[in-house]
Amino acid sequence: MAIVSTQTTVRSRDGRTTRDALVVAARRLMEVQGYQNTSLDDVLRESGVGKGNFYHHFRSKEDLGYAILDQIIGSFLERTLEPCFSDFEGHRMNQIRCFLTRVLEYQRERKCVGGCAMGNLASELSDVHEGFRARLASVFTAWQERLTLAAPRGADAGGAGAGCQPERWPTSWWLPSRAPCLLSKVTKNIGVMEQCVD
Amino acid sequence: MAIVSTQTTVRSRDGRTTRDALVVAARRLMEVQGYQNTSLDDVLRESGVGKGNFYHHFRSKEDLGYAILDQIIGSFLERTLEPCFSDFEGHRMNQIRCFLTRVLEYQRERKCVGGCAMGNLASELSDVHEGFRARLASVFTAWQERLTLAAPRGADAGGAGAGCQPERWPTSWWLPSRAPCLLSKVTKNIGVMEQCVD
Repeated sequence: MAIVSTQTTVRSRDGRTTRDALVVAARRLMEVQGYQNTSLDDVLRESGVGKGNFYHHFRSKEDLGYAILDQIIGSFLERTLEPCFSDFEGHRMNQIRCFLTRVLEYQRERKCVGGCAMGNLASELSDVHEGFRARLASVFTAWQERLTLAAPRGADAGGAGAGCQPERWPTSWWLPSRAPCLLSKVTKNIGVMEQCVD
Repeated sequence: MAIVSTQTTVRSRDGRTTRDALVVAARRLMEVQGYQNTSLDDVLRESGVGKGNFYHHFRSKEDLGYAILDQIIGSFLERTLEPCFSDFEGHRMNQIRCFLTRVLEYQRERKCVGGCAMGNLASELSDVHEGFRARLASVFTAWQERLTLAAPRGADAGGAGAGCQPERWPTSWWLPSRAPCLLSKVTKNIGVMEQCVD
């Protein structure tokens, strides 16, 4: 199944651009219709890249899928997680507010289409594709370590409460982001997410 | 793609049993590999039912999918939501604890396979199948109305806090269930979900 694109497909034969065109096209398709339901032919049609050229850049659709997952993870770490949680002395509530506001803005820009890319892949593939499951699980472990470092302690916790346990915080902070993304995706109503974040 | 089943397929020609066999087989496949990625041929192979007999009970794979969704929703309402939230005078924390404990037990029984069936369908289909999206969105609206009725007020809120707003509660109570289901599914570690619920 292919999504009819209103964008001009990229037909450049420059190596870098061709690889990017494949990643961009495949990501656009997979974020809407899923990884398994996006065929290599869909990606070639959407990108305007020939099959021979595809195999110059990727060994398989799976290889392309991993490249997309790496891009999604990198973008999330660089644009959302690090800017909000890099201040180890910051107040927890400010860190969480920063994080949720960025997630909300992203969903608003996307008009509630797509939802949470990593959550979608985890939902779709965790039981059927060990490679994706393991990568996604390792990202979760990495966040947990990163956020345990960032978790404020004691009097500096800023609303975290006396019972705040830094080693448990990474799991609990993740909660308020995934469900509202999915709710706004299914209801097509950004107000649902605004209410959750609020 | 078919999942190799260790169960004996149901070959009864009794009408009721044949329909059930189709629903059970299709649900087992779809909960692991998704709706779109489960073909009608997969369902027929898994159930041992012939194509002609299938069309005696369902007009299409979509029709079967709706029957499965109705079953999932009915089971969730009957076995999880109603028993925990039917007491309008109950303490909010007890209601939520009851709900989360049932979700946790279900994931433990399933050994972290499958995750949240409605969440998976919402994640997979909200952007590509308006019929499923609309049904799932209407379930959310129905829960919201049901839970607004059940939301405790004022001094009876039992830990809900003075700022508890019943109309906002249904969205917030949903949060603690979806993300831990997905986390335990991707990490294959029920401890992650126990920690979230805790």
